[in-house]
Order: sequence, then C-alpha cells, then structure tokens
Amino acid sequence: MAIADIVIKNGTIVTSEITYQADVAIQGERIVAIGENLSGAREIDATGKLVTPGAIDVHVHLEMPIGDFVSADSFFTGTQAAAIGGTTAIVDFVETQADETMLTALTARRQKATQAVIDYGFHMTICPTDIGKLDQLPAVYQAGCTSFKLYMAYGLRLDDGQLLQALEAVRNVGGMPVVHAENWEVITSMIQRNLSAGRIEPRWHPRSRPDIMEGEAAGRVIDIATLVGTPLYIFHVSCAEVVARIAKARQDGLPIYGETCPQYLFLTDTAYDETGVQGALPVCSPPLRTPTDQAYLWEALGQNNLQVVSTDHCPFTRAEKATGLQDYSRIPGGVPSIEMRFPALYTFGVKSGHFSVNRWVDICCTTPARLFGFHRKGHIAVGYDADVVIFDPDREVTLSTDTLHEDVDWTPYDGLVMTGWPLMTFSRGEMIVEEGRFVGQPGRGWFVQRRLG
Amino acid sequence: MAIADIVIKNGTIVTSEITYQADVAIQGERIVAIGENLSGAREIDATGKLVTPGAIDVHVHLEMPIGDFVSADSFFTGTQAAAIGGTTAIVDFVETQADETMLTALTARRQKATQAVIDYGFHMTICPTDIGKLDQLPAVYQAGCTSFKLYMAYGLRLDDGQLLQALEAVRNVGGMPVVHAENWEVITSMIQRNLSAGRIEPRWHPRSRPDIMEGEAAGRVIDIATLVGTPLYIFHVSCAEVVARIAKARQDGLPIYGETCPQYLFLTDTAYDETGVQGALPVCSPPLRTPTDQAYLWEALGQNNLQVVSTDHCPFTRAEKATGLQDYSRIPGGVPSIEMRFPALYTFGVKSGHFSVNRWVDICCTTPARLFGFHRKGHIAVGYDADVVIFDPDREVTLSTDTLHEDVDWTPYDGLVMTGWPLMTFSRGEMIVEEGRFVGQPGRGWFVQRRLG
Amino acid sequence: MAIADIVIKNGTIVTSEITYQADVAIQGERIVAIGENLSGAREIDATGKLVTPGAIDVHVHLEMPIGDFVSADSFFTGTQAAAIGGTTAIVDFVETQADETMLTALTARRQKATQAVIDYGFHMTICPTDIGKLDQLPAVYQAGCTSFKLYMAYGLRLDDGQLLQALEAVRNVGGMPVVHAENWEVITSMIQRNLSAGRIEPRWHPRSRPDIMEGEAAGRVIDIATLVGTPLYIFHVSCAEVVARIAKARQDGLPIYGETCPQYLFLTDTAYDETGVQGALPVCSPPLRTPTDQAYLWEALGQNNLQVVSTDHCPFTRAEKATGLQDYSRIPGGVPSIEMRFPALYTFGVKSGHFSVNRWVDICCTTPARLFGFHRKGHIAVGYDADVVIFDPDREVTLSTDTLHEDVDWTPYDGLVMTGWPLMTFSRGEMIVEEGRFVGQPGRGWFVQRRLG
Amino acid sequence: MAIADIVIKNGTIVTSEITYQADVAIQGERIVAIGENLSGAREIDATGKLVTPGAIDVHVHLEMPIGDFVSADSFFTGTQAAAIGGTTAIVDFVETQADETMLTALTARRQKATQAVIDYGFHMTICPTDIGKLDQLPAVYQAGCTSFKLYMAYGLRLDDGQLLQALEAVRNVGGMPVVHAENWEVITSMIQRNLSAGRIEPRWHPRSRPDIMEGEAAGRVIDIATLVGTPLYIFHVSCAEVVARIAKARQDGLPIYGETCPQYLFLTDTAYDETGVQGALPVCSPPLRTPTDQAYLWEALGQNNLQVVSTDHCPFTRAEKATGLQDYSRIPGGVPSIEMRFPALYTFGVKSGHFSVNRWVDICCTTPARLFGFHRKGHIAVGYDADVVIFDPDREVTLSTDTLHEDVDWTPYDGLVMTGWPLMTFSRGEMIVEEGRFVGQPGRGWFVQRRLG
Repeated sequence: MAIADIVIKNGTIVTSEITYQADVAIQGERIVAIGENLSGAREIDATGKLVTPGAIDVHVHLEMPIGDFVSADSFFTGTQAAAIGGTTAIVDFVETQADETMLTALTARRQKATQAVIDYGFHMTICPTDIGKLDQLPAVYQAGCTSFKLYMAYGLRLDDGQLLQALEAVRNVGGMPVVHAENWEVITSMIQRNLSAGRIEPRWHPRSRPDIMEGEAAGRVIDIATLVGTPLYIFHVSCAEVVARIAKARQDGLPIYGETCPQYLFLTDTAYDETGVQGALPVCSPPLRTPTDQAYLWEALGQNNLQVVSTDHCPFTRAEKATGLQDYSRIPGGVPSIEMRFPALYTFGVKSGHFSVNRWVDICCTTPARLFGFHRKGHIAVGYDADVVIFDPDREVTLSTDTLHEDVDWTPYDGLVMTGWPLMTFSRGEMIVEEGRFVGQPGRGWFVQRRLG
Repeated sequence: MAIADIVIKNGTIVTSEITYQADVAIQGERIVAIGENLSGAREIDATGKLVTPGAIDVHVHLEMPIGDFVSADSFFTGTQAAAIGGTTAIVDFVETQADETMLTALTARRQKATQAVIDYGFHMTICPTDIGKLDQLPAVYQAGCTSFKLYMAYGLRLDDGQLLQALEAVRNVGGMPVVHAENWEVITSMIQRNLSAGRIEPRWHPRSRPDIMEGEAAGRVIDIATLVGTPLYIFHVSCAEVVARIAKARQDGLPIYGETCPQYLFLTDTAYDETGVQGALPVCSPPLRTPTDQAYLWEALGQNNLQVVSTDHCPFTRAEKATGLQDYSRIPGGVPSIEMRFPALYTFGVKSGHFSVNRWVDICCTTPARLFGFHRKGHIAVGYDADVVIFDPDREVTLSTDTLHEDVDWTPYDGLVMTGWPLMTFSRGEMIVEEGRFVGQPGRGWFVQRRLG
Repeated sequence: MAIADIVIKNGTIVTSEITYQADVAIQGERIVAIGENLSGAREIDATGKLVTPGAIDVHVHLEMPIGDFVSADSFFTGTQAAAIGGTTAIVDFVETQADETMLTALTARRQKATQAVIDYGFHMTICPTDIGKLDQLPAVYQAGCTSFKLYMAYGLRLDDGQLLQALEAVRNVGGMPVVHAENWEVITSMIQRNLSAGRIEPRWHPRSRPDIMEGEAAGRVIDIATLVGTPLYIFHVSCAEVVARIAKARQDGLPIYGETCPQYLFLTDTAYDETGVQGALPVCSPPLRTPTDQAYLWEALGQNNLQVVSTDHCPFTRAEKATGLQDYSRIPGGVPSIEMRFPALYTFGVKSGHFSVNRWVDICCTTPARLFGFHRKGHIAVGYDADVVIFDPDREVTLSTDTLHEDVDWTPYDGLVMTGWPLMTFSRGEMIVEEGRFVGQPGRGWFVQRRLG
Repeated sequence: MAIADIVIKNGTIVTSEITYQADVAIQGERIVAIGENLSGAREIDATGKLVTPGAIDVHVHLEMPIGDFVSADSFFTGTQAAAIGGTTAIVDFVETQADETMLTALTARRQKATQAVIDYGFHMTICPTDIGKLDQLPAVYQAGCTSFKLYMAYGLRLDDGQLLQALEAVRNVGGMPVVHAENWEVITSMIQRNLSAGRIEPRWHPRSRPDIMEGEAAGRVIDIATLVGTPLYIFHVSCAEVVARIAKARQDGLPIYGETCPQYLFLTDTAYDETGVQGALPVCSPPLRTPTDQAYLWEALGQNNLQVVSTDHCPFTRAEKATGLQDYSRIPGGVPSIEMRFPALYTFGVKSGHFSVNRWVDICCTTPARLFGFHRKGHIAVGYDADVVIFDPDREVTLSTDTLHEDVDWTPYDGLVMTGWPLMTFSRGEMIVEEGRFVGQPGRGWFVQRRLG
C-alpha cells in the first residue's frame, strides 16, 4: 500500500454498529485503509476524539422560492453551515413547471447549486402537473434522483388518485417516495374558519393542523403504499399519532420509514403563544407539538420506529416572517437547523441517554445514506468517500446567531448549549472545516449520482 | 287492567338478552303487559314459536332515483316484502337539491312514502351543496331525522374539510352520522385506467375498489370523527380491513359502530366472474369480497365488532343491470335483500352457531332501534310499540323470485333454504302478515319522530 | 289473570338494557306480570324510584375459617347487611377436607348457612387434595354448584399441572372455573426476604405482591384455559396489568371474564402507610393499588373488559387485624363491603358518569346471574324470582359502622357519602327490607340449584 | 505499517451492515488493517468469495452428561465440526453440584474442554441448589462467564420465586440470563397421563408439550424479568406463541431477545410419526412444531423479532435414542446441527429471500457476539480477533453423515443440499480449515474472558 495522503490517527471510530480504535487512511477522495499504525503524508491526531461518517441531511430547502419569498440560505451559505455542523451531504428539491420536463427542471436546479461546498442531490417533486409526465421517471432515476417528493398538502397537493399513480410510477423505477402527510382539506377548512372568525395570530397555526390529521394522512398514504407495494418515507413526523401508525405498519412487516426534525425534538407549541414576530418565527408545518409528543419522538428514535433525523431547514428572516402577522396562514413556514442537528443529537440524544453513540451515527449518517442511495457515503469503511468528521465530545458551544453560520437573522435555539461539536469535517478527502471554521472553496460540492439496491 | 285487544299466548319471548316464556298483551298500538295467563279479546297461540321484536332495517333505498334509473321497489312493495320478512321499520334517505331547504326535501320525500305499510324514517343526506345549510340541522333533527348520511364516494362525495364541518354540525344536534366509506379518488383513478385499457366487464368492479381503500376511508372518517368528538356509524362494511379499524377504535373506547349486509355475508366476489348480465347483477358498492372477509364479518358480529346487519336494499332489474355491460362503472349498483335478512340471520347466524338467538335480536332489532332513535321499538317490553314477530323456527322456505315479494325480476339468493321464517308480523298492534301473506293496507305505515338519548 | 299479591306501581324499571315505566306484579315468589295499570292485593307506590333486579354478589366469605380466625359476619348478619344494601343472592365457598367427599363438604357447609336471609350458593373449591376426586365433579354440579374455585396462591394453591387437570374436569361438566390469580412463588419469596430484613409493617404488603405478578398469573391461567378450551372467570382484578390481559384475550374471542371489587375501586395503596392497626385494616389480596390502576378498572367496567363487581367480603375485627402487626404476612386478609356495593356503584359509577344505569344493573345483577347459573334471577322479567329492589336515587347515606349492618367494628369507607340507596328489598316475593330496616326472618334464604346454559 | 502475516485479498467483506470490497490484513491473532492493495507475507486470493466474521454458536452441549448418557460430540469433535461449518466460537454450559462452588465447577468444566479447536465460553447454570450461592455470581462474572442459564423445566427447574432471585442476582452483576422456557408442571402432568394410558411412542412427545405452554412460560419469565429490570434471552424458540410474546415485549421497549435453532427452521412435528427409532431421533425440547410455526420463525428472523440462530447441538446416537422407545419421555433429547447452521442459514435464509446477506451475518455472528460478551469477535474490523470465514457462495454440499464431521451416527438433515459453504476458517489468525478439511491442532481453542457493556 502506498503512503496515504492523510491518516487520522488514534481516534475512536464510531459506526452505526461498533466503536473501536483505529487509524483511517485517506487517499484522494476515498478511505483506502483502516488499520493500526497507518502512516500518511499528513497525519492528524484524533486522540480522545470520535471519528464518524459525515452526517447526511436528506431534507433541506436552500434558495427555495416559496410564495413571495426565497428561503434565506443560499447553496453556499447553507452548505457551509452544514459542513461546520458535520454534515457532508444534503438532499434538496426540484420542482418542475407545467411546461417543462423533469430533466430540464433538474438541470436548472443543479445550476442553482453550483456554489455548494458539500455533495448534494435532489428529490424530484411530483407535482399535480407531473402526473402526465410519469413516463419521465426512469430518466430522472437514471439521472441520479432516486427519491420523489409527494405533497398531500399545499398547492402541490396530489389527490389520492394521483398519489396512487405517482407511487406506482416510483415503485416501477425502484425509487423511494417521500411524503409530506397532512390532511389538507381539513386544514384549509379550519384555517378558513379561524380567519373568518378573526383568529389570525400564530397561536392559531397549531390549532389548524391537529396531530390526528397528520396521523390520518400518514395512515392514508401508508395504506395506498401498501396497496401499491412500495416502500415509503414519511417526512417531518411531529407527533405520537404518526409514530403509532408507522410503528404499526413496521410491526406488520411493511417497509415504512419516518424522520423527525430538531424543531419537533427541541421546541413545543407554546412557542406560538409569544407576541409579535416572536410567535411567528417558529411557524413550520406540521407545527410544533406538545411535550408528550416530544417524548414519543425521542422514544421512537431509540426503538427504531423513527429511522432518521433530518432538518427540513428552510429559514426565513424576521422581516419575512412578520409579513404574516395579520394572517398566520401567510407566514412563510420553516425554521433553520442545518448546522446544529448532528451535534444536538449527540448532546441530547446520546448524552441524555435516549440512545447509543452508534444509534446516533445510524440516525444521522448511515440510514439516510442507505435509504437515499448515497451508496458510497454514511460509513467509515474502505472504499467509501472520505466524508469524515472528527468530533470533539467535550467541546462546548452555545448556539446563537453569532456562533451559527446560517444566513438568517434568528435561530430558534438561541442559548442552547451543545456538549460536543465537530472539530474537523472532511468531504471526499478534503478538510473543509478546521476548528469550527470553513476552510474550503465555494462550489467544491458535487451532484451525487445516487442509486438504490 | 282491562282486557287486552290481543294476547300472544304461550310463546317464547326472545329479547336481545334473555329468552323466556310469557304472554304478551297488546292494547291499541302498544304492548301493555307481559305476564302469565293473560287474557285478551283475541288470543293467538304461539306455542313452540319465538316472539321477537319487529326487525328494523336502517339502510334501504326505495323508489330511489340513481342516475338514469329508479330503484325497483316502491315504498309499498318494498315495505310489504319487508313486513313479510319480519321487518317493521325502515330508514330510507332524503337528498336535498341545491335550491331547496332540507325540510322541503324531507317533506317531498315523505310524500313519496305514503303507501308504506310499516313505519319509516329518513336519513338526511348532507350533500356538498348542503354545507352552506348546516344551520338547518336542528330543524331537521326536530323534524324526526336523527341520522345524517355522509358520502365519501360518488357525486355526493364530501371532501374531508366538508366531512369535518358536517360531522361537527351533526355532533352539535346530537345526531348520528352514517357514512359510506370508500376512497373515491383512488377508485375513480382505477376505474379510468381499467376502462381505458378495455377492461369493461363486471369482474373489474371489485378490482377497482380494493378492500384496503375501503379500510383507509373508514380509518380516515374515524379519525375525523375522533377529532370532532362524535359517534359514527359505518355503512355496509364488506371486509376485514374495515372490521380491524372499527375494532381498534372501539378498543380505544371510541363510540364507533358498523353494519354489514346480507350480500357480504352470503355472496363472494367470484360472482362477478359470471358472463353476461349474470356477472352484472350482484354489482354493489363496496363490492362483494372474499370468503376470508366473510369469515371475519361473521366473527365480528359475534364479538360485537360489528353491531348491526341492515340490507342496503336497492334493487334494479336485469334489464337495468344489463345497460352497463359495456362499462362496469355504469351498472346501477345494489341488490335486493329487504325480505330475507331477518330469517337468513336466524338460519345462518343462530343455527350455524355464529351467535345466540339473543344476539340475533340484538343485531336485527334492538341495537338498530337504539342507535337510530326508535325509542319505542326494538324491544318486547311494556310501553313499546307492539311491533312483534311470531317466528316459526322450523318453517322451511326456499328463496326465489316466486317465494319472495320484492318487485324485481331476480334475487341473488335463488335456492337458498331458510330454516325459520316469520309466521305473523304485527305493526303497532295490527297483524299485517299472517302465514306469510300480507294482510294489511297500503299506507298504514307512519313516519316516525325519532329521537336519541 | 288473578289479582297479584303485590304490585309495585309507577316505578322506573331498570334492566341491563332499557329503562321504562311499568308496574310489576308479584304472585307468590315470582314476577307474574309487567304491565300498565296492574292491580294487586298490596300496591306499593314507586313513583320516582328505580325498580331493579336484586343485586347478586358472587364472591363472599361468611363465617369462613381462615387460619386462626373466622371471618366476622355470620350467614345471618352478612346476608342481612347484604339485603339492606340491595343484594338478594350470594355465592360463598366450600372447601373439602382430604378425608371427605365434596358432597359431604357441601352438605356440611350448607348446614352453616341455615340462618341466611337471602338465597345463596357455593363455589366448590378444588383443593390440591381434591385432584384425586375430580370424578366427583358431575355430582357436585348436579347438586347445584356450577362454579369451582381454583387458587394459584396460599396453601390451597394448585400447581399448573393440577390447574390443567382441574380446568379440564370443570370443562367436562360445563361449569365455570373461578380463580385467584397471583404468582405465589414470587410472592412468598418476596415476603420471606422482607421479613428477614425486618420489613414487617403493612406497607410491605403491596410491595410483596407486585401488580405485574398478578398480571402474570392471570395471563398464565388464561393460557392454560385456552389450551383446555374452557371459559374462565378471574376474581378480584386489582390492576391494569390484569385488565390488559383480559382485554387481549377477549379481543381474541376467548370467553374470559373478570370482576373487580369495591376496595380496588375506592381505596388505594397509600392506606397501608398508616401507622398501627390502621395500616393493617385494609390488608387484602391482591393488595390495594394505585390511582392509575383505579382509573383503568373504572374504564374497564365501562368498556366491558371487566364484567362484574362483587365484594370478596371477608371482614376481620380490629383486634384480629392487629395480630399481624409484627408480621404483615399474618394479618388476616379481607375487608367488608357486602352492604355498600350496589349503591356505591350507583353513586360513583352511574352518577359520576363512568357508565349508564343499565350497565350498573348489568354489572351488579344480570351478568353475575348469567355467569353463575342463577337462571331465575338477575332480571325484572316475567317468570323470574321476585328478587326486586326499589331504589331511591336521591336518598343520601353516609357510611359508617353506625349506618352499616355488617358485624365488624370498622369499615374502610367511613364517611363515604352515597347518593342513592335501596328503599325496599324483595326476596322471592317477600319484602325483607323496608326503609333500610331488615324486616324478614333469619333462615328464610334458600340454597339455589344453579345451572348454566 | 509492517507487512502483515496474512492478507485475504479481493474478497467481498460482509458485515452485519454493509457489503464491500477490500483486503483484510491479519497480524498475529488480530485483524490489523482493512484496505485496498494490502500486502502480506501470505496472500490468499478471495476473489468471488464472501469474507465474513467467524460464526458464533451460543448454545451447544458437548460431552454433556444428561441422565444415563453423555452427548456424543467431544469438545474436540464438536468444535472441529463447528469450525468446518464456519463457527469460530461456542458457548457451552457448566452445572455446579450441591457441594461445590460455581468456580470449582467452572474450573472442572474448563478441564473437559482442553481439546477444543476454537474459542469457547460457558453459561453458568443456576441450579436450584445454587440459589444459596448467588453471592458467587460476581466472581463467576469476573471469571468470564457473563451469561447464566435458568431452567423452567427438568430437574434443574427453578420455581418462580427462585427465578426472581436468580434474575436479580444476574442483573446485579450486569450479566445476561438465558432461559429454557416451558411450563414444566403442565408438561409433566400431560406426560404422566399419556404414559398411564399407554401412549408411549415418540409422537406423543409434541402432544405433551403444547406450543401455548412454551408461550406461557416465555411470557411468565418476561414478566418476572420486567419486574426485576433485566434483559433476558430466550433459548430455542420453536413456535409462533413465543414469537408473539417476544415481539410484544420488544414493542413495549423491553430488552428481550430470542433465538431459534435449525431444527425448528428445517424440521416439523410429522417427523415424530415415523416408526421405530426413526421417530425417536428428532426428539428434542421444545419439540418440533408445525409448518406455520416455521413460517413465523423465518419471518421473525427477518423482522428482528428473533435475533439469533444457535444450534442447541446435543447429539445422541441411534442406540441411545432407541432406549426410549417404550417411554418417549426417556428418549435423550437433542439433535446435531453444529456444523451446518451457518451455511444452512445462507442457503435457506439469504438465497431463499427471507433476509439479506448482512442480516445473515448479524444473526449468526454479530448479535451473538454482542449479547454474549465476545467483545473482540463477531465483526470484520480492525482490532478484532482474526476469526474470519472465506465463504464460497457457490459451493454445493449435500449433508449426510459422510459429509458431516459430527461424531454421531445420524443427521436429521440427510440429503439437504447447501449452496454455499466455508472454504477456509481462520481462528485468531490461524487457518484451521482449508477446503473443507480441518488443518488445526486439538486444544488450540481458548477459554474466552467474556465481558458485556
């Protein structure tokens, strides 16, 4: 074996399964050896540190036009923040206009991402106007999009017949459908009633989107997926009602998966009771829920009834949020968390005893890689991309807009103290974060040709 | 106590709970005494016979315009057949046109029923165009309609937001919502695909309405009812998928009820494989299912996971059925069973050992009376309407269009042998069926002012 | 019809199913008519009162030798108190000595009961020494004992192999096995350890009999009963752990039944923390549990996951209780409640909204009669024994040793206020309680030839 | 890095999680590197072969005295056969006599094992006579026995109070209790009855040990373990009744684990219907079950409701088996499978589509290592023991006493064709099997100091 470019020495390797001591040798972009006493042109001492796979965030919205606004983080600022937090790959979204093909839309969206600093992919959204274009799915899958976003809410909502057709088409290409599950008809009915009655403040947001109607929608799409015979991945599970339905399906042997997000693990719906823009900031959908729901989500992560934590990172500025103060349904939805997810799950998942350090890696790195076709990421193993984090389990970081690098003027986690933070992040063999500072180049990230199975 | 008009002597009284020997005294329209050695102006010997409450059929369609056709039985012929089969009260349906009030529609529908020979009520259908008229529900309830029909399928389909509003309005008047639960969007998508592919025969009917999509719809409306906080009654449960959801809800303590119908207990989906009109005759929705589903339905009746058997009696002629042979989705849906239900449940429910004779009375008489506000029917008890059946447990009747009195030129039960059949039927103290012949007058039936609680 | 001896006029008849107005005519020992405007030699006005079946208590221990003591109430005092509380039939226990036959033991025990003022039966206990006598069961059943008591605890404990044999023998005669379910080996191990460690006070009693070990034993005997193919009735269910197992079995379609008792519905385990004899008084087995368990028990009664409330009435005096203050395991176990059960379930079951007035009658009268072969009791119906209670739903009674008639110097319910109390109790046509005073004769009660099916 | 002793080149590494191409370098007894293009003093080409961890069999009985017999395989012959089948570590059993200490017994048993050719450990059996010696458990754990065998059947049966104490003691040392769960009292009662009735043939064996009584015992010990707060591992799960109870417990979040064995996956209870010794050969306990149970077991392995497949290897000769032909309860129980387990699970688990190749490694290698404290085995990872199998996925082997190396004159798998078989087995860096032949030395196996957590 030739001398490696880089060897990370004396660290504690943490995979989704085991924890052990060994050196990691990187040559070019890949891990080429794991062993004892490895030598490299550059040797980095990781004594007392954890060496983990780079985290993967399969649910982000960067530079995403939503209504009148565009989500605040660019592909550059967003991926930079992600990298500092230990994330080395993301999946964002493409939406196809009625008069273009999916591949055209993908190409256009890829253009937007050229300044990304870590690797990325896109979920192809299947809009109602795409139902006539389902024969394009094989080409989309071939182009590296293995996952397909289906909305049960908002203007992009598919009705159940369209869901059926979309799920069949995704099944036929062997892809993974991902779904936003809420009962849109009930929600719009409740919003309309609230607004008509002058109930316009943010605290009416959660009261318009009951947990059981998120559960209902999840149950419904699970039923349709069962009819079709396809796996299914449910986005941003916020409450016990959905967990129960996923758990039941899995117990029945069905390939159903669910993710939750930091906002549902760390925040609760009393946040909407704040006055002024403060109550508007944490508006996201599904909404924040109760402490009881939180407890269920943590337990579900430990018991594998939820499989992944991603972020649904979709920041809007305070000013943008404030535009909805006269009508909560017009507040642009979404919160930032692209940077804090991986360390936050360590601090509050592992150190608080909800799950093991291996389960942490599984939730944040290995399982998202596997479900979403990053076949060379998500592991510390020979032949895999050298997407590696050297994680300092003792480093203390207090979250604030000062310490975070997201391009938005607020954070819902202000003052939250992390115990454990990435020291270095490697992306395909290149150290791009060092001591918490981004040291890479804009645009070094690549579009990943994902594939499943 | 004065001498009663009629005393049924020496019979075996069967209630939903107990079986015992006693005489039943009738004065005018009511039962005035149950006792030993009672005397009456007319004494009828019921030695060796069962004395049961008149059966109640809460799901019939008489003279019902559906598409281009009208269901074959008139209120006269339909109720006459019902009475011969031991049924003394029915609930039919009212639908309100966009430009009329519900009360107007009720009045008009009541006009249609003037020739009925037994008592009747109407479920008030809440059509999409009625969502703006929900403030009329208190008046409708006051007018004696305690139950409200909600469609999740067909042109009258309410979307989920409308369902929410309708269920809330029904809850507010203390009424009982009854629902046709199927996932219409999925079904129409499947029908369209089948027709486009030239799959037009009746055997594609069940293949367009999968059991799991009936289960899904039932689960969905249970969820919405739970959100609203209302009881709910699910019509014509055809399969295990729905039973499972009702059973789960009841186990959670929710007031959810379900009925099945003879067609689902006695027929299976292989019936659609017949060629020509024969395969079209049993088209109904939900469709006939598998023998396994049948087994679940019988078991659910025994275990109180289903509470009622009604008929969904809605006959169309062979000629009418044949009009859909080039497009199964245009076959008018529905089968006749208004006459055979009560004895058939005795023969195949009680004698076959699925449940006790008391459970038979509960399923066919007592529970439908209780859930649908026939507060003076459904029991053999003092003060109740003298709706009474003298049932001969040994009488053998072979079903056919000759032996049945329904006004339609076919029956799905041709050749089925009943062991047990009503000898006499009393409606409000009047003997209207004697030895299997109708001996009453057209139009003697009354509209019942139903009330709950 | 001849003029009846007694007519209870104008009352509101409450059965397990319906509530209605009618007169009840009694001739000799039986109900001979229910009707309007009945006349009798004696007419009793029950306007504004409930007319219910006499309550049945299928679990009492009168004059029962247990260890060094005999339970405090004699058959006279115990049944007198029962009658005042509206109970008109009880089931007590027989135990057979090693050297006698079951019938001999039954005869002897019947001798003890000659002063009873209401009707009675006996569960035949199957002791370990009776395993060789199982061929006597047909004779015992013929002699009117349709139920058989099996202990999984105490000296009379059957091991699981003996349980199997006993259950088979009971199945073969068509009887009902009733079981005390606790894991005796675990309990004795825990008691021994506590005593060895000097933990001798009553508060160690519940800590020696964990709820999950009551659940385990219930689950075990349900499994053995399932293997054998027999129904099963579980005594004195105290906790959610047992309810869950019964509910699961019933959901699986198994004929498993459970009762709870007033002590588990009204008292909790903090009672054992009292000092001195006060903490010893409520010692019973299974022990009192937590408020959460209480909530489950009430809910289970409402949902029919428990079917009966009986008392396990087994009073010991304060002095007798005090003998175990140096060793909680020697405190004679049992509490009194034979008098208060029926009204207490009305006040705290019906008025508090846990269940309907009909369910109250079902739980206290109708279902115990049905399960235990009182084929002429438990209903207000023609031909049934005239065991009738005229219940004043407004009468207020504050429980205390002064107001109660049990022959024991304490009550666990001191100060508990009943709203609703029996005004008159009839036993086989004879008014034996009038305005809360016993007006019958000692010894008027009869041994009942019970039969099932 | 120095030149390694051995490098396995170009193989496909299969772990419990991923499958990838890399070379494995072995230095001395350990894996020192995994990488690309590694060089070693000896290089072995594994192109087209799978490189897996050595399999671990946590349930074997070698040279085990049972009644009048000793199980047929010695530690030499048994471990040799194991090694040829790809197994590199086993766990056998120690039993302590009443008059000796556990450590003495362990020492004596270790003496028996000196000829073993692979590494081994022992479960310390806690016999009834050991209940007084539970204070020896810390020393036993320190001596490397992290697991403790508890019998609910046979002469070594602990009653439930003893189970409680034993489980508490195991919990206190942080060990893993393993349990034989059957209801012994019911079984002995049924055996006795069968023998008394002259039902002596092997086919009465399964009829004496009903599946629900295995389920009951599993449920019982799960309940006691839950009370105690300890993990629990259930041996030789044979049927759906036990799977259901484990699945329920795991769904409730309890740390309950179960194994099944090849006999339950490949054989069914009709085997006992054979005449003569043929019907006696497959006698083992729990007995073989139905094809339906088999289907549940395979499904449970795929869904992680069972975690491990071990063998319960315990061979007796045809002559020994024949001694029980006049009394099936005296047939020495046990079947051989120590050699075929790992390849059989590949052929019928992976190739038949029940689970993935990674799940195969998990079930046979990784999870048993983790649960039983082989902290340096069960993985292909740096620093772990070089217990490695080069597995030829295409090699066909037909099982027979000729092809197998177990020291017993029959196999229940005669004629079964394996597709896939180990080519080479390495134990701590030493190649001990080459081309299906054992090439190591007797006695080279070591007792393993196991530790958990």
